[in-house]
Amino acid sequence: MRLACLRDADGVRNFFSIDDDATARKLSRPPWEGIDVAGEPRPWDPADLAAPVCPTKVVCIGRNYAAHARELGNDVPSEPLLFLKPPSSIIGPRERVLLPPQSSRVEHEAELGVVISRRATDVSREDALSYVLGYTVVCDVTARDLQRKDVQFTRGKGFDTFCPVGPWIETELDPSRVRVRCSVNGEVRQDGTTEHMIFDVPTLIAAITSVMTLEPGDLIATGTPEGVGPLVDGDSVEVSVEGIGALPFSVALRRPG
Amino acid sequence: MRLACLRDADGVRNFFSIDDDATARKLSRPPWEGIDVAGEPRPWDPADLAAPVCPTKVVCIGRNYAAHARELGNDVPSEPLLFLKPPSSIIGPRERVLLPPQSSRVEHEAELGVVISRRATDVSREDALSYVLGYTVVCDVTARDLQRKDVQFTRGKGFDTFCPVGPWIETELDPSRVRVRCSVNGEVRQDGTTEHMIFDVPTLIAAITSVMTLEPGDLIATGTPEGVGPLVDGDSVEVSVEGIGALPFSVALRRPG
Repeated sequence: MRLACLRDADGVRNFFSIDDDATARKLSRPPWEGIDVAGEPRPWDPADLAAPVCPTKVVCIGRNYAAHARELGNDVPSEPLLFLKPPSSIIGPRERVLLPPQSSRVEHEAELGVVISRRATDVSREDALSYVLGYTVVCDVTARDLQRKDVQFTRGKGFDTFCPVGPWIETELDPSRVRVRCSVNGEVRQDGTTEHMIFDVPTLIAAITSVMTLEPGDLIATGTPEGVGPLVDGDSVEVSVEGIGALPFSVALRRPG
Repeated sequence: MRLACLRDADGVRNFFSIDDDATARKLSRPPWEGIDVAGEPRPWDPADLAAPVCPTKVVCIGRNYAAHARELGNDVPSEPLLFLKPPSSIIGPRERVLLPPQSSRVEHEAELGVVISRRATDVSREDALSYVLGYTVVCDVTARDLQRKDVQFTRGKGFDTFCPVGPWIETELDPSRVRVRCSVNGEVRQDGTTEHMIFDVPTLIAAITSVMTLEPGDLIATGTPEGVGPLVDGDSVEVSVEGIGALPFSVALRRPG
């Protein structure tokens, strides 16, 4: 099942179950509060898609693919390395990542996203997938120069628009072996597979919830494979995960306020 | 004006304006959506106090007092060092900080908290204080061993219960010169003043909003003065900020799930 957030003509957002390329049915509430298909089929268009999540937090995993850790000169971690992106960084499909004046090097990081279905504290690896609503596509956009300067990742990864998410949540997916890709202006830059994750999705959920409670609707970004590279003004980007779909976005300059 | 969140006998939480030690009046909505005193005076008790915030994010500042940066062996930063604590870490007055089994060294960090009143993006230092609803008291509880091990602060500072906040939001305060204190079992451990902040509150708001949009109700923890130290099972802690009040909490062991 595909669960999307669609904007109507007035810009109002509601959650829908996507039947096929042409029709969708409205949900009575956000899907992490329970999937309740309440509406008649109605037409939809990819231009209507908004970010399919509005989480209380976005928990991200650093260096979860060995080849990516190596390409940035880092060791492979012995346990999952957690960091947070602020919810204010989330944008939806076809929106614009804005390059801030503080950075001269902003990069794409294509990732599998995990959306949580129910409150999770101290969850075991064995039970972990029963806390998953579904999967989506995330780009963990990163100002690499600021990430290196600050050491803490928060500023470099926390700018407004630095977290494209979409196109929808796919509830039927085995996350253990799917391709994660990023292309920029039609050129493939990242092409990995979740088989190469150091810590798989159940292990990540167990590790995160041994620290912090995950709430319904919370988003986990599971780390990026190798091939990260720069984004510049005017780029057209597509991040995709096999079995979910493609998340397109563009890149522009942020004007100082 | 003091704005508090009070629990009633059924555990339901509502926001109130505190008139005095005995009476409070209900607000029609959270104060960051507009302060609207709608209720008749009713009695209240300190045991009713809950955390006075439920932010979309908690933005924290590292190494904002030179003596504290030095006591941990760090350089003084050239611009504000941002990190995030998850909203799931927040507890209210008289609740318990739970020491997780993963850490053998959890410490207190007493801080002035700033609560945002309206959406803020690219705010100037000059305009910054007009985006402040008021001030509160925060303890940025930190698993020091995990903070050092991970380098990223997220895990060490992100455990459930690691962000006591309260006792209320004080709207009338000049944040530039107030004492910030922490005592453990009656012994004063931290006794600093916001005069010694490297970056003052307006500078912090300008710096944060040049990166990420602050939403109404968001919380900023402005950094801790020197004197941080360990918390152990059974400790009774009080963090206070002059002109606001005292935030008491206790310390216990977290049982593995």
